[in-house]
Amino acid sequence: MIAPLKVGLAGLGTVGAAVVDLLDRERAALLARCGRAVEVVAVSARSKAKKRAIDLKKLKWVRDPVALARDPDIDVFVELMGGAGDPAKAAIAAALAAGKSVVTANKALLARHGVALAAVAEKHRVALNFEAAIGGAIPIVKTLREGLAGNSFARISGILNGTCNYILTRMEREKLSFAECLADAQRLGYAEADPSFDVEGHDTAQKLAILASLAFGTKVNEAAVFVEGISSIAPEDIEAADELGYRVKLLGVAMRTGKGIEQRVHPTMVAKNTAIAGVMGVTNAVSIDAEGFAPITLVGPGAGGNATASAVVADIGDIARGVRTAPFGRPSAKLTVSKQAPMQRHEGGYYIRLAAHDRPGIFAAIAKHLAREKISLESIVQRHRGTQPHGGDDPRSPDAPASVILITYATSEDAVRRALKAIKKQGVIAGNPQLIRIEKN
Amino acid sequence: MIAPLKVGLAGLGTVGAAVVDLLDRERAALLARCGRAVEVVAVSARSKAKKRAIDLKKLKWVRDPVALARDPDIDVFVELMGGAGDPAKAAIAAALAAGKSVVTANKALLARHGVALAAVAEKHRVALNFEAAIGGAIPIVKTLREGLAGNSFARISGILNGTCNYILTRMEREKLSFAECLADAQRLGYAEADPSFDVEGHDTAQKLAILASLAFGTKVNEAAVFVEGISSIAPEDIEAADELGYRVKLLGVAMRTGKGIEQRVHPTMVAKNTAIAGVMGVTNAVSIDAEGFAPITLVGPGAGGNATASAVVADIGDIARGVRTAPFGRPSAKLTVSKQAPMQRHEGGYYIRLAAHDRPGIFAAIAKHLAREKISLESIVQRHRGTQPHGGDDPRSPDAPASVILITYATSEDAVRRALKAIKKQGVIAGNPQLIRIEKN
Repeated sequence: MIAPLKVGLAGLGTVGAAVVDLLDRERAALLARCGRAVEVVAVSARSKAKKRAIDLKKLKWVRDPVALARDPDIDVFVELMGGAGDPAKAAIAAALAAGKSVVTANKALLARHGVALAAVAEKHRVALNFEAAIGGAIPIVKTLREGLAGNSFARISGILNGTCNYILTRMEREKLSFAECLADAQRLGYAEADPSFDVEGHDTAQKLAILASLAFGTKVNEAAVFVEGISSIAPEDIEAADELGYRVKLLGVAMRTGKGIEQRVHPTMVAKNTAIAGVMGVTNAVSIDAEGFAPITLVGPGAGGNATASAVVADIGDIARGVRTAPFGRPSAKLTVSKQAPMQRHEGGYYIRLAAHDRPGIFAAIAKHLAREKISLESIVQRHRGTQPHGGDDPRSPDAPASVILITYATSEDAVRRALKAIKKQGVIAGNPQLIRIEKN
Repeated sequence: MIAPLKVGLAGLGTVGAAVVDLLDRERAALLARCGRAVEVVAVSARSKAKKRAIDLKKLKWVRDPVALARDPDIDVFVELMGGAGDPAKAAIAAALAAGKSVVTANKALLARHGVALAAVAEKHRVALNFEAAIGGAIPIVKTLREGLAGNSFARISGILNGTCNYILTRMEREKLSFAECLADAQRLGYAEADPSFDVEGHDTAQKLAILASLAFGTKVNEAAVFVEGISSIAPEDIEAADELGYRVKLLGVAMRTGKGIEQRVHPTMVAKNTAIAGVMGVTNAVSIDAEGFAPITLVGPGAGGNATASAVVADIGDIARGVRTAPFGRPSAKLTVSKQAPMQRHEGGYYIRLAAHDRPGIFAAIAKHLAREKISLESIVQRHRGTQPHGGDDPRSPDAPASVILITYATSEDAVRRALKAIKKQGVIAGNPQLIRIEKN
């Protein structure tokens, strides 16, 4: 009988503890499914004394994660410390160089150093698996790497950050402001004390850059992702979206265009009848447009100890089974540096909300600038102050500007930006226009 | 360099032709992704003369599929002929016995002979892959076998038949009858001339039996699946569902209960805000409840040449990569014969529609029999004739029975059946009661 696969695990937070627990509980099933037993033999974490639900007594404790990664007693190194640099990076590199397969959930590190580490893994013919880095328990990496191995992709898009989707869901359902929902998310532990990494879209951008590499065979390039967060989304945008048949989601979208690979993260109006629009709360979802058939959408829990541990354990299971796949789906040397389509060349429909001063000729002025840029309108909605109840806390006065909402047909980002600049310059609107891109699917 | 993987393919219908085409188009990408080129070298089909979009000139033609399966020139046998018996069965068995891996899309054959064939594959250490048998391009088999290898499952459910979902979607959207929608489905090629295999739920039952085996580690047991089709669903059921916040779907559900594994296929009321309820038209979806976290739902095209070919080619890609996984996730000898929970022990909520004679004491009579079986009601709706416009083609007369719709709290199938039998016996209703089970997720 083949010897058990011996696991060394660095990082014993929520996910690490859940992995130790799951490997223990599902020991027999994993052996049956993978043909080889899996056993955690050594661990490393910042504090040995910290109270944990798991029993560490039988496990070897290695203070230095890099030393654990090199430990001859282990076959696989599982990195759950996080952080884009050392010690995570040094430990993973050490494990790969020592001929040990690695499993990690570290998207930040993969976005920055993934391709270089993949080359080391390939050289030593070991695995570098990272299903847990994107979409929690959703098997999106496996689906792109293996499940759709025979396909070319046109587009991959998704809701990749549970915090943002939770905030947008509550804003819609309870008609609350961004700030109110963020505060609740922080109270419930869905958002960090410094929420900007999540709410400004950077977490989504890192995940998208990795998915784009898997889908298009390109080198991971986070710097090429256009990023806009959700902090500017107002309750009236969500309300207007609802009236127009849309829902606002923070989407990451990577697509092949005539101008190169377009990668972008921004609040997006998605039609209510799409699978993506139905994804509420902390749930994640990824839609894959392969050429030749209708999209495939995978929906599921994108975070949490048990969901993330599920992906980590499946990755370990593949190593136990003897599967070695190039980390980014193709040999790292074959990943291309693709032309990146600049955001100003993006084409699509736009939702525009303007605070228009209430005086004659205003529509004519707006229409003129749009026409000059050849932008056609699908709909125009003026939200009349008069239809709103005038309660004591209504900040609007009769002199306040009225909201004008425009939905454009497909046009270019460039044209829209130029038109809005001209409109603003003419002094017919107050403040800055709100701009939300529309996705057709 | 490793020699190309040589494929012999039997069955050149829509799917077979799409596989030949896809392998050709994605030749370079498959080599990059799998580390080995894939090449179709020989084919077999009923008619050599039939016009096809693909070029057969370079391919060896083998009249007998069993001979093709044994052909020493091929490494992998792809079976796309269909049919639960020979020649498909004999050809697959011959290929496995000759030490060749097999890829098939044949759910009927797998439901009947899958476990026996898996044992042959395991003995010869070759693959028997069948991603295309369930859910078209959706990588559901891979997800259960590998992507969630470290999980125990509580429940797996899904929309597994596009024909039924297409009919139910049109009935809802256009307020048409089952018969009208079926006729359209036949005209559009979504339904067979004899539609009963699809619309009476047998296609779904075969797929469900295979999924249950993958999820629960049990032997495939189609005979244990309770099956009820959609032909009895009336427009007024769909309308009532809509009013009550539900949608009617033909679901396959396999779940672990205290009484064993429950497997059932029947029209189901699902809450409109669930991911499954949003799946419309010919699209398929599978929801997986793993223990410890929120469900994962995979949605996508369940049929069609390109979608099915995508799954076949991914299966071939895994073989090229050298992956050999036990066909049903665990060695066939370890698959258990699980206790099957009988349908009369099923517990859940029920939608009941009765055509009640319009006379005093009717509600009291119905309520008495329900109370006797300890069935509590969540809601009662009487659909008054008076609220309907009386057009010339309205078949209802003032003497016609009124529809009474009852939604029960969770109860047992047994109790509901007994209560309805007693109600019918008392002569207070016309015809047979309509009964639709409700699923909470």
